[in-house]
Amino acid sequence: MKIKIVVSYDGTNYCGWQVQPGKDTVQRQLELALTAVTGEKKRVTGSGRTDAGVHAKGQVAHFTTETKTVKPENFYRALNAHLPFDIRVIQSELASDDFQACRSAKKKTYSYNAYLSCVEKPLKERFAVRFDHRLNVEKMQQATSLFLGEHDFKGFCASRSGAKTSVRTIYDFKLIKKGEDLTFLITGNGFLYNMVRIIVGTIVEVGRDKLSIEQLKALIDGGDRADGGRTLPARGLCLENVEY
Amino acid sequence: MKIKIVVSYDGTNYCGWQVQPGKDTVQRQLELALTAVTGEKKRVTGSGRTDAGVHAKGQVAHFTTETKTVKPENFYRALNAHLPFDIRVIQSELASDDFQACRSAKKKTYSYNAYLSCVEKPLKERFAVRFDHRLNVEKMQQATSLFLGEHDFKGFCASRSGAKTSVRTIYDFKLIKKGEDLTFLITGNGFLYNMVRIIVGTIVEVGRDKLSIEQLKALIDGGDRADGGRTLPARGLCLENVEY
Repeated sequence: MKIKIVVSYDGTNYCGWQVQPGKDTVQRQLELALTAVTGEKKRVTGSGRTDAGVHAKGQVAHFTTETKTVKPENFYRALNAHLPFDIRVIQSELASDDFQACRSAKKKTYSYNAYLSCVEKPLKERFAVRFDHRLNVEKMQQATSLFLGEHDFKGFCASRSGAKTSVRTIYDFKLIKKGEDLTFLITGNGFLYNMVRIIVGTIVEVGRDKLSIEQLKALIDGGDRADGGRTLPARGLCLENVEY
Repeated sequence: MKIKIVVSYDGTNYCGWQVQPGKDTVQRQLELALTAVTGEKKRVTGSGRTDAGVHAKGQVAHFTTETKTVKPENFYRALNAHLPFDIRVIQSELASDDFQACRSAKKKTYSYNAYLSCVEKPLKERFAVRFDHRLNVEKMQQATSLFLGEHDFKGFCASRSGAKTSVRTIYDFKLIKKGEDLTFLITGNGFLYNMVRIIVGTIVEVGRDKLSIEQLKALIDGGDRADGGRTLPARGLCLENVEY
């Protein structure tokens, strides 16, 4: 049978999602837990990779198993008994045979989390990044709307991306401000390598008045990576959910 | 001159506030940073100790210094340059000669942070504790009001407390629910050893219907520690601020 799981993790101590020789990753921990539960050696396939240090509230993955001792809806508990405290399967269910956590994904939502302050806040730094408190947040909010729709995002992609096309569609993009906390919430049909971290880094340049709205517009449709902002730290990024 | 500082820390990796031989503590780190800045060996006196694993958003401390190279309002930056990332001085100012971070404190506010869920959430677990999602939160909110005013809290104090009296005054106590997140906010003129963690642990027993409001009332005025709830984990507790 095929099982779909929803996984949440604090990515701080992992070299990202994907199994790599000699490194500890989230996929490795899930596969070890699955073996501990079923005795089988099986691949746990995610909706996509997350980079080293990136967090997830709702990563989705699937695996197949021959085991009959654990019901699909109880798999999360069985796996959690063998997982480290910073990775938790929060849901499990029977999936149809043709379900593919990666290929069947229709939309993904990421958050990028920051706070406005002149000094680091130790209680925020694990899951968010400090921004200069003098940023023009209204202008940054205005900038997010320019990303909506289908664009060639080659200007917002790390050079080592191996994607066939850099065209992606953004369905929703909001910058929510609550007191000093900023949350960028972006939903798209897929994201290029480092894309969200570069997009937010570029919007920060708009907030610093180093990049105009006009310059940003040019950058969004097929612009050059060198004209954008810096790639922000991984720890502010969180895979919120995956829709099928 | 005497300097007052406000300090925030992620207490996870520290054996609490107070300097102890062979252990890493927040006070130790602040005193090392102060020596690095001024060349002097001075005591940094806090408003009170926090236990191992307890966090702070607004701990207050003071120290004296002969240095003339750093202005009081710039001391926070100088100290931060020598502090680990999980401790930050968020403010510094000149204090009057008679200011005592501990003795001059009039009110302290602590938060205890929890969330209602049937499974651990790795993105919350560093600063909060999971509670059973079936708790009766309304009843727990009702219970908080019983603590207001002056009471003999000997039933809410760890046995190794060396306090002269167990009478304390609670000025404010609220349980705020936002979605699955619970925040207990308690303000008092002082707190006994483990008092907040025992109070919240006992209120959880009310939420589980294991302790009645009547039983709680009896416990609040001079009751027996053995009749209360368990001492909840340190990581949910945070010293929010100290008023003078």
